[in-house]
Amino acid sequence: MKKIIPSLPSGMRDFTPQQVYERDYILNIIKENFQKYGFEPIETPAIEKLSILTEKYGDEGDKLIYKIINSGDFLKNTDIEDFNDKNKLLKKISEKALRYDLTVPLARYIAMNQDKHPFPFKRYQIQNVWRADRPQKGRFREFCQCDVDIIGTNSILSEVELITMATEILNQLKIKNFKIKINHRKLLKAFSEYINQKDKATLLSITLDKVDKIGLDNVLAELKKNNISDNQINKLKEVLQYKGTNEEILLFLKNKFQNINYALEGLEDIQKLLTYLKFSGVNLNYIKVDPTIARGLAYYTGTVFEIIVENSNIGSIGGGGRYDEMASVFGLKNSYGIGFAFGLDRIWSILKNENLIPRKQTNSTQILITLFDEENMPLLLKLSKEIRKLDINTELYPAPIQIKKQLSYANKRNIPFIVILGKDEITKNKFILKNMKNGEQHFIPIDRIENILNFTSKSKISSY
Amino acid sequence: MKKIIPSLPSGMRDFTPQQVYERDYILNIIKENFQKYGFEPIETPAIEKLSILTEKYGDEGDKLIYKIINSGDFLKNTDIEDFNDKNKLLKKISEKALRYDLTVPLARYIAMNQDKHPFPFKRYQIQNVWRADRPQKGRFREFCQCDVDIIGTNSILSEVELITMATEILNQLKIKNFKIKINHRKLLKAFSEYINQKDKATLLSITLDKVDKIGLDNVLAELKKNNISDNQINKLKEVLQYKGTNEEILLFLKNKFQNINYALEGLEDIQKLLTYLKFSGVNLNYIKVDPTIARGLAYYTGTVFEIIVENSNIGSIGGGGRYDEMASVFGLKNSYGIGFAFGLDRIWSILKNENLIPRKQTNSTQILITLFDEENMPLLLKLSKEIRKLDINTELYPAPIQIKKQLSYANKRNIPFIVILGKDEITKNKFILKNMKNGEQHFIPIDRIENILNFTSKSKISSY
Repeated sequence: MKKIIPSLPSGMRDFTPQQVYERDYILNIIKENFQKYGFEPIETPAIEKLSILTEKYGDEGDKLIYKIINSGDFLKNTDIEDFNDKNKLLKKISEKALRYDLTVPLARYIAMNQDKHPFPFKRYQIQNVWRADRPQKGRFREFCQCDVDIIGTNSILSEVELITMATEILNQLKIKNFKIKINHRKLLKAFSEYINQKDKATLLSITLDKVDKIGLDNVLAELKKNNISDNQINKLKEVLQYKGTNEEILLFLKNKFQNINYALEGLEDIQKLLTYLKFSGVNLNYIKVDPTIARGLAYYTGTVFEIIVENSNIGSIGGGGRYDEMASVFGLKNSYGIGFAFGLDRIWSILKNENLIPRKQTNSTQILITLFDEENMPLLLKLSKEIRKLDINTELYPAPIQIKKQLSYANKRNIPFIVILGKDEITKNKFILKNMKNGEQHFIPIDRIENILNFTSKSKISSY
Repeated sequence: MKKIIPSLPSGMRDFTPQQVYERDYILNIIKENFQKYGFEPIETPAIEKLSILTEKYGDEGDKLIYKIINSGDFLKNTDIEDFNDKNKLLKKISEKALRYDLTVPLARYIAMNQDKHPFPFKRYQIQNVWRADRPQKGRFREFCQCDVDIIGTNSILSEVELITMATEILNQLKIKNFKIKINHRKLLKAFSEYINQKDKATLLSITLDKVDKIGLDNVLAELKKNNISDNQINKLKEVLQYKGTNEEILLFLKNKFQNINYALEGLEDIQKLLTYLKFSGVNLNYIKVDPTIARGLAYYTGTVFEIIVENSNIGSIGGGGRYDEMASVFGLKNSYGIGFAFGLDRIWSILKNENLIPRKQTNSTQILITLFDEENMPLLLKLSKEIRKLDINTELYPAPIQIKKQLSYANKRNIPFIVILGKDEITKNKFILKNMKNGEQHFIPIDRIENILNFTSKSKISSY
């Protein structure tokens, strides 16, 4: 084997034990809440058929899907002319691809497993996805999504449940300053009718969605370039500039859109949602009606929402909405659906910046048993077995090297206690339990190992 | 979007909530024990550079690595002549590949993160790997490995620790009839010297390793085809046929290999290991010295072991060994290493066959709140919030459909309790908690919601 310089592909990451701990801390809170609301986990494979994934994420998305070369003689069905057409060749040499999100696999899963689950089907799915995006600060090519969806009902209680659960999770994570911005696709659509540009509905949605990112002035300038008249732009500007409470915004829009029936339906849905959220115990200060939120374009049909953290340089940490047609592409009828996803990386980033991740307490080693003399190994092996029986994570140092080096290892690993059992102690039938933080030493009889708990149990709660 | 028939690539699997639960049950026991022995988790990305993975798994292995097509214009560096040479073309259109095992990524990780960790470095890693193997019963193209390794020490305590931990895990999983077969690469190598065929050491290792699969007679026939003489084969046969206790086998081999110094070292290592395992509390009936075990060939240098379950049609459920040169390919010096891996799928299969997975109790929904009348939603939303506060997983049925259908949903989901709050109950300020198994109904005052715990806490321990 020739020597090579070890490195990672761009956009890929290793996670150290500390990082795994921090990410698991977040994932556990998310999972516990998903379960508390009756959601159950499914998992789908990393590799899907390319035909399942393409044409679901738009042209740009299709380009970002990681494609896998067919195994074996991948050129067998090609002829020399295929090499003039990249896309034609690609179809012949690649039939599989990496999961790009968790929503399309969910739709496929449901279409294939309809008879296995009662509906409404409440599932969560926490897995990695891969996108060949340009890597940049905070954006990776492998990242973890935490999706939760309810399939098979169009009840507004689903909206209420998902948003209640999201606020509960963010509260438990102690994230302050978050806002859940709510909109309805029917309202977004109404803008084009309101300014007499019905055939530019899609353009308008895409552009309005950028208000948060590039500001209202730039959005309006962009619309002007696309042949929206000054008069029409002024009408839009008046609506978009309006500031007020949720109630005031709803009233204002109701007035503006009074002749657009579907817009009034959308407004009524939002009004109902706000009422139920209150009964559901949600602090409505977290909720902000925002008629510019679009959440992409592909498949949403009703309520959409975006979760942002104000005064942070991180934009959206999650979002979702209702998509009542999604699974129809796989032959499923009446496939009502609603869901949202948290992005683990952005939540992690906020929690780290704000110092909101508790220091590690329990998962790692609690006691290091030091080793002076190979002769004592039998005794120390027995001792480590007995201590582990007390449910204490325990290591035995593997070699009788200088005690200084063993202590340094314990310090670097943040191990709060060490056990010392040298010749002196053996003759006294005792061992020393030493607290590495304050230096306190306790002599514990070998036949009273459980006395360790008097000292370590405290440390589990408030160690280093 | 055109309609397509949903399906999965061959060798790929979805996991239902029940299956995720069963697999998590196993993974949790494995993880808890890894942590109890002081191992810490790392994670590495699914996508590695192809140059990191190739030439580590042998020619056969290299063929089974899933290769990813470069993003964008993947043909840009090719010219028309490349299409006559599949391998030359592959190098130009693919630079990345999917993780094939967890050992090579560990070696790469350590070489890149030497300064971040004190040594010995005790890590575990539980992640999926992908192999373009021929799919067959019980063999998949995406599967989960549970690896645990100790890097940076050649102390035999590492062997002791890993094997002790493996038996502990298998005991907790209640797997009976398992045997850990132990060998040493020095013993395996000695066979070739013993029959004066030193240059056929590799051939001998590969062939002897098949004794378990194809039987001794077929192994000897295969050796004969490879120009091992009858006399030499008889010498081998005598050793391989020998049956006895571990002590007897060690003594027998010591006698046979008395002139081969490194073989005697290997025997001494095994003897020491057995002694320490006993002190470490391992029941030695689980341990069987077996001089034919090879565990592949690539990188092992010392002790090797294989975990099998007797009287099952599943072969090895795990195994590992010492590899003291592994990370040197990435420029790491003195890179002592030892580790083993459990295969999740095979353990899952055994536990299912033997009915050893406890029925689900806690993770899923405990209470379904039924809904009769949309007017009651505010009250029911409040109630569901209060019940969840008691740490009870709770769902509110999302639509006021026939109660029969709501009960049928609860039954299909195995939800042990439902809450009924109709007009009658509201006037009485009470709700009904109904046990779905025995039909018992309890009236609970709305201001005494915590009384639910009197009935559900029992059910958490012994429900359906």
